[in-house]
Amino acid sequence: MSEGDAPGRPDDGEDVRTDIMAATYRALCEHGYAGLTTQAIADELGKSTALLHYYYDTKEGLLVAFLEYLLDRFEETVATSTATDPGDQLADILEALLYGPADYEEYHVAMVELRSQAPYDDAIRDQLRRNDREVRELVAEVIERGIDEGVFQPVDPDRTATYLLSVVDGARTRWVVLGDDAILETVLAELRASLEDRLLAGDRELAVGDENS
Amino acid sequence: MSEGDAPGRPDDGEDVRTDIMAATYRALCEHGYAGLTTQAIADELGKSTALLHYYYDTKEGLLVAFLEYLLDRFEETVATSTATDPGDQLADILEALLYGPADYEEYHVAMVELRSQAPYDDAIRDQLRRNDREVRELVAEVIERGIDEGVFQPVDPDRTATYLLSVVDGARTRWVVLGDDAILETVLAELRASLEDRLLAGDRELAVGDENS
Repeated sequence: MSEGDAPGRPDDGEDVRTDIMAATYRALCEHGYAGLTTQAIADELGKSTALLHYYYDTKEGLLVAFLEYLLDRFEETVATSTATDPGDQLADILEALLYGPADYEEYHVAMVELRSQAPYDDAIRDQLRRNDREVRELVAEVIERGIDEGVFQPVDPDRTATYLLSVVDGARTRWVVLGDDAILETVLAELRASLEDRLLAGDRELAVGDENS
Repeated sequence: MSEGDAPGRPDDGEDVRTDIMAATYRALCEHGYAGLTTQAIADELGKSTALLHYYYDTKEGLLVAFLEYLLDRFEETVATSTATDPGDQLADILEALLYGPADYEEYHVAMVELRSQAPYDDAIRDQLRRNDREVRELVAEVIERGIDEGVFQPVDPDRTATYLLSVVDGARTRWVVLGDDAILETVLAELRASLEDRLLAGDRELAVGDENS
């Protein structure tokens, strides 16, 4: 946003960028990672590829912006959570992470592929690290608040957050790789039981997976 | 192995196949998934590409055979574990899964990429499913034996195995994608604490991660 813009009122460039990101998302769901061409995105947008090139010099730049867009969407989803109890809030975050922003299997398949490219592409890896750090800090803050309020046991918030993100990452990757729909539900139920044993104080229950089971 | 072979004495064809698999492994460590060409494997083998084509019609066939070879190696590693206690055996298996057959980062990077291709390739996905099923059944058997011997709590062996494989998968994938060496150690320590709370009966400890911490 350039200097002098009214806060919260993006200029036209921002609107176009948001439209391009939404078109990239639809193109990923439709065509997967290998089919994510500038032409496919332009088609979803209903504009020329010249417009895309005007806003993003390279496909890498577009992908990095897209990862940032996903992070913003995730943070919005979590911010609109009506949960005030740290246990409920943690449950909302874990479900959002596990099921992602979409029911489209193509989208999750594409993300596994995009992530596998990180070791070869510093810009993509840097953005993935940024996404990871922000989500991890968000989870750690909720855990810390839960400990302060006496809802959670006094665990290490950062290490517990790293563990939780590994569990949801592993479940989603295995779901994509093995194509077994039961994995997400099984892992969520086991994670819930594990958190009730280890994280929650007393006999509290975690409302994770209720809507999906 | 053809009929009439003495058990445990593979014929020459088996020897060559084993050499090709070992060369494929070295080529993966050296060149990654994108650089895994027939020529690269032949170079590692010190033979011509014609020999490779004689034994494997397609690269897909070679990759499927390679996944099977990895499964065999994993099962050998676990079979040679000297642990008789189910807790120690489970610890050995989880470490073998987490750290894999090699310290080569290139190898793990290549495996994340190979796995990301499963949704597009039925033969590779089928072999990955076979690997997963055998490892999962092995883990479930150890858990079942632990329950029978009163070492473990009466959990559901299959669901617990699925959960454990998701944890190690997630940790290793995140290590590859984010390039953060601390992830493996953190997740192993948290998993150990979680299993001591939830799986082990009484005040027993799990000797997982001892050699690596």
